[in-house]
Amino acid sequence: MATNLVRFETGAGPRWGVVTGTQIAPLSGDYPNTAALIERGEADWREASGRTTRIALASVEILSPVTTPARLYCQGANYRQHMIESGMDPDSKPFNMFFTKADASVCSAGDAVLRPAHVKLLDYEIELALVFRRSITSAITVTRETLADYVFAITIANDLSARDVQLPQTQFFKGKSYRGFCPIGPWLTVLEREEFPVIDQLALELDVNGAPRQRDTTANLVFKPAETISELSTFANIAPGDVLLTGTPSGCALRIPPPPIRKLVQLLPDRKFWKLFLAAQARRPQYLKPGDRISARILSRDGRINLGEQLTEIVGP
Amino acid sequence: MATNLVRFETGAGPRWGVVTGTQIAPLSGDYPNTAALIERGEADWREASGRTTRIALASVEILSPVTTPARLYCQGANYRQHMIESGMDPDSKPFNMFFTKADASVCSAGDAVLRPAHVKLLDYEIELALVFRRSITSAITVTRETLADYVFAITIANDLSARDVQLPQTQFFKGKSYRGFCPIGPWLTVLEREEFPVIDQLALELDVNGAPRQRDTTANLVFKPAETISELSTFANIAPGDVLLTGTPSGCALRIPPPPIRKLVQLLPDRKFWKLFLAAQARRPQYLKPGDRISARILSRDGRINLGEQLTEIVGP
Repeated sequence: MATNLVRFETGAGPRWGVVTGTQIAPLSGDYPNTAALIERGEADWREASGRTTRIALASVEILSPVTTPARLYCQGANYRQHMIESGMDPDSKPFNMFFTKADASVCSAGDAVLRPAHVKLLDYEIELALVFRRSITSAITVTRETLADYVFAITIANDLSARDVQLPQTQFFKGKSYRGFCPIGPWLTVLEREEFPVIDQLALELDVNGAPRQRDTTANLVFKPAETISELSTFANIAPGDVLLTGTPSGCALRIPPPPIRKLVQLLPDRKFWKLFLAAQARRPQYLKPGDRISARILSRDGRINLGEQLTEIVGP
Repeated sequence: MATNLVRFETGAGPRWGVVTGTQIAPLSGDYPNTAALIERGEADWREASGRTTRIALASVEILSPVTTPARLYCQGANYRQHMIESGMDPDSKPFNMFFTKADASVCSAGDAVLRPAHVKLLDYEIELALVFRRSITSAITVTRETLADYVFAITIANDLSARDVQLPQTQFFKGKSYRGFCPIGPWLTVLEREEFPVIDQLALELDVNGAPRQRDTTANLVFKPAETISELSTFANIAPGDVLLTGTPSGCALRIPPPPIRKLVQLLPDRKFWKLFLAAQARRPQYLKPGDRISARILSRDGRINLGEQLTEIVGP
């Protein structure tokens, strides 16, 4: 059965534990980072729930279960509907789009996130994140059958994005990397090998102030984890504890005009085009404002695999 | 006086040394990575050239002086002429463009580099690279006067780029990250504090098969190192040994049509547009082919600060 591993602060430094309902069964070992937990913590976490010590989940501060430094690799436009809305045909699978987020963006599933003073178009993107188990330093071929050799756990990530930086400046990296722009967790869900097929059937749900915004399932992922890691390995190194964010479904605040209209307005001078674009986006109330509360959940249809819930409040400078 | 620190292989594992003409004065300590050299090697390398041991530079294999894992931050379109050719006005300094390369791309200044089988439009980009001295984990303000507190050394980087991946797929990260796509070195040039102003007056020279392709000076950098690090610190963490590539001058194989023409041909359907674009680029003999030899040098006008020379042969699969 899947194990949910949480990293938390009790006041005496960060610790790890297994989530059991509303409680935590703490690990006895000391793992200063996620890689250490992955490399030498397994016996410890497999035994933890058999021990008697328990800590109330509500009494501790949950920390990001991904420690930094870590590499954050990301996929763009990887859900069928999101790809169609971006003017691409998911069935032709034109290419797998990769980018990175700075690890400065990592925060925990309960942290408040600052909308920087210069950002007006702050958007949310719920994503299934894979946490790697082992080093990859050369091109390899991963299959559905060998995925469990490479992936240690799955978790929730919110790929928060400043659209007014990302798009007019054509830079994914800067617009998605401000501190706090990547809540991860609340915990790592470690699947047993036979549970791995559930990765292709998880429900993603993101609400803002209680209203549904994103609803999809990983069944609609265009480039699946195994083929994605295979391609990633041709141009990137991976270490235990590094992360792959697999892309977000449709439903973001961003609304891109359909390709024929986009082509026409792109005839405008750059400055005029972006002025119009930003003004149109600014009228969309879906963009995040200070005081907004995001909740994000990922789970299997039967609820047996549950990656937990992120609760993120947006705050002003 | 500036010190040139080289990492090399003698057959008994990697070592570090100070370059003295055609010889190396080896360090006595063991520094497994660049961060260790930065953090505890200074007394050692300041004393090395006073010792008698010498190794002929020509007798050893030069290794990348940037070890991995390391973060490779990059600036795009950061030289005046390159910015003008890209349709931007350098005087309005619209924005500082950042992206990353995977550290899988790092290789040494003498390594042969594989042009992957699917890449036809392989391009070169000589860049001044800064190697960081200390950790930065929050937004800071760096000035010309405090730059030496943050930058340990300067070196040459070649930001090799597969234009046929980077541009049609709008992904800088993938197109610039294949293994071998970032020759760094041959050595780290450690400036004394009073020498730091030379960073703004270095000549960059890149030839292919002996013919000049890129000639510029860092005087034409639009966003200077201090202001760039200040902005970078608002969305990225830095550790000793991490690197900033400061952008490349004009003269690359890539030729982008001027903005008015670009706007018109962008009216074509995407597939047609990219087909035309790639066909036009493929007629340019400047793109790198197996057998081509790149040489890249960065130095001060008086030759006193000399970052050395990269010699890169492109090879086929």
